[in-house]
Amino acid sequence: MIGIDWGTSSFRAYRLDAGGCVIARLDLPAGILGIPEGGFPAALLEAIAPWLADGETQVLLCGMVGSRQGWVEAPYLPCPTGAAEIAAAAIPLPFAGARCRLLPGLSTRDAAGVPDVMRGEETKLVGLLAALGDAEALVCLPGTHSKWARLAGGRITAFATQMTGELRAVLLQHSILGRLAAPGRSEAAFLRGVARAREAGGLLHHAFGTRALGLHGELAPEEAESYLSGLLIGHEVLAAGANGHTLGAIHLAGSDALAARYALAFDALGLGCVRHDDDIVARGLALLSERLPG
Amino acid sequence: MIGIDWGTSSFRAYRLDAGGCVIARLDLPAGILGIPEGGFPAALLEAIAPWLADGETQVLLCGMVGSRQGWVEAPYLPCPTGAAEIAAAAIPLPFAGARCRLLPGLSTRDAAGVPDVMRGEETKLVGLLAALGDAEALVCLPGTHSKWARLAGGRITAFATQMTGELRAVLLQHSILGRLAAPGRSEAAFLRGVARAREAGGLLHHAFGTRALGLHGELAPEEAESYLSGLLIGHEVLAAGANGHTLGAIHLAGSDALAARYALAFDALGLGCVRHDDDIVARGLALLSERLPG
Repeated sequence: MIGIDWGTSSFRAYRLDAGGCVIARLDLPAGILGIPEGGFPAALLEAIAPWLADGETQVLLCGMVGSRQGWVEAPYLPCPTGAAEIAAAAIPLPFAGARCRLLPGLSTRDAAGVPDVMRGEETKLVGLLAALGDAEALVCLPGTHSKWARLAGGRITAFATQMTGELRAVLLQHSILGRLAAPGRSEAAFLRGVARAREAGGLLHHAFGTRALGLHGELAPEEAESYLSGLLIGHEVLAAGANGHTLGAIHLAGSDALAARYALAFDALGLGCVRHDDDIVARGLALLSERLPG
Repeated sequence: MIGIDWGTSSFRAYRLDAGGCVIARLDLPAGILGIPEGGFPAALLEAIAPWLADGETQVLLCGMVGSRQGWVEAPYLPCPTGAAEIAAAAIPLPFAGARCRLLPGLSTRDAAGVPDVMRGEETKLVGLLAALGDAEALVCLPGTHSKWARLAGGRITAFATQMTGELRAVLLQHSILGRLAAPGRSEAAFLRGVARAREAGGLLHHAFGTRALGLHGELAPEEAESYLSGLLIGHEVLAAGANGHTLGAIHLAGSDALAARYALAFDALGLGCVRHDDDIVARGLALLSERLPG
């Protein structure tokens, strides 16, 4: 089968064998925001035509392609939920004679009743559920909008979004903090930022400190990005942990570079973590494909 | 004398009588970022030529005009400090035959040794000191970069910046949160945001909730800006208060619309406040002018 994770800014397709193993993968910068209205079937066909010609007939999509700005809007499925319900809520899409389905996103509400949403990450979580079984677990999927999910009894019970990656990008590109920053990476500066997040004053104050440290010559321009990343990730992790985490090591899955930064932050904050392959989304797509109705 | 608060995006000039009362004021959108290199004397002359022609000979400047991007860089004066030291650190500027001086900014360090800076707000604080005498006080000067200062013994002992206004602007203009927002003001939505800031999850999570609420039809597009403002101001106030505030009512000085929002947030959070006129900067300029050396 062909499994696709189609997000806001990227398109990732997997060709999977009957056992759910990845035979081939395709990464394109063709996120949904770049697809003209009505252009989704053509864009998909262009990307996966060789696999279809080679005999594949099953296509399963997840991600922002199911949002209001996507191909078709798929409703959000409320938590708690699991693989069976997610598969059952898949929507059939007419596409090139294939059996093509679109997975729903998930919604949740916190103790105060405030909603949250995800699209695409539910499929990663299904992939993780297969590995974690019925155990209780706290999962961190870092990104533009990081998702922190709770798993228990083989189901996704709740989650919370932290818009860390997007805030980092807008601060560096559009705020005064970007003016003193030069390209560069520094693990030491990143860890300084993580440590700063534990101190009093709050995120809005700590972020400004990036500039004040720069003006005082106590943070080099090449260190500013890493320091700010450490600050924001530190605040994210502490806020997510403030929900009363007693679930042991955090399960972490993301791109190599980003997961490595989160693992560093966890370590600095005295939290254990278990890293998973970022391709768990392929595993989730394969598992959900098996459970599709009719 | 002529007192000038020249900031990043605005120019405000006051003509003051011998008693420090405002005779005339001038507001121009001529912030320092719009002044070409070497163009400061000409821009200033154009703005205040009529007052100079009318016999004024003393000109005192404060604000970002003393920053690296301004006319001349004036060093930061470290806290604790008071009016006498600030006046003594003024820098003479050659300008149109007048006695023209540029005030320094202030710097401070928190308990962890992290620096912070201000330029222009120190002059407002001097204006407040005249009203508050030797009393201990916590002051909030809201804005693009809000300043929270502590006064004691007639001096400015410490301060902290919260980059609330700038974060609000970049989130609305450049992040996904702006896409669901439409122009509009709602006091109820603002107060919902303030109340949300008290709950678990942190700012990075609460901010994303603006979008999730919108997607669920639980926050109208016309309410999104006010809700986000309430969230950010709520987080700012709680973080500033988290420093162990036991100083009674908060002294608040800012533009009418912004100060009204902060007063609402203080009230919702059970904090008392005393409002001061935004033109305290004119009072500070007059007081500092009297103390200029030689």
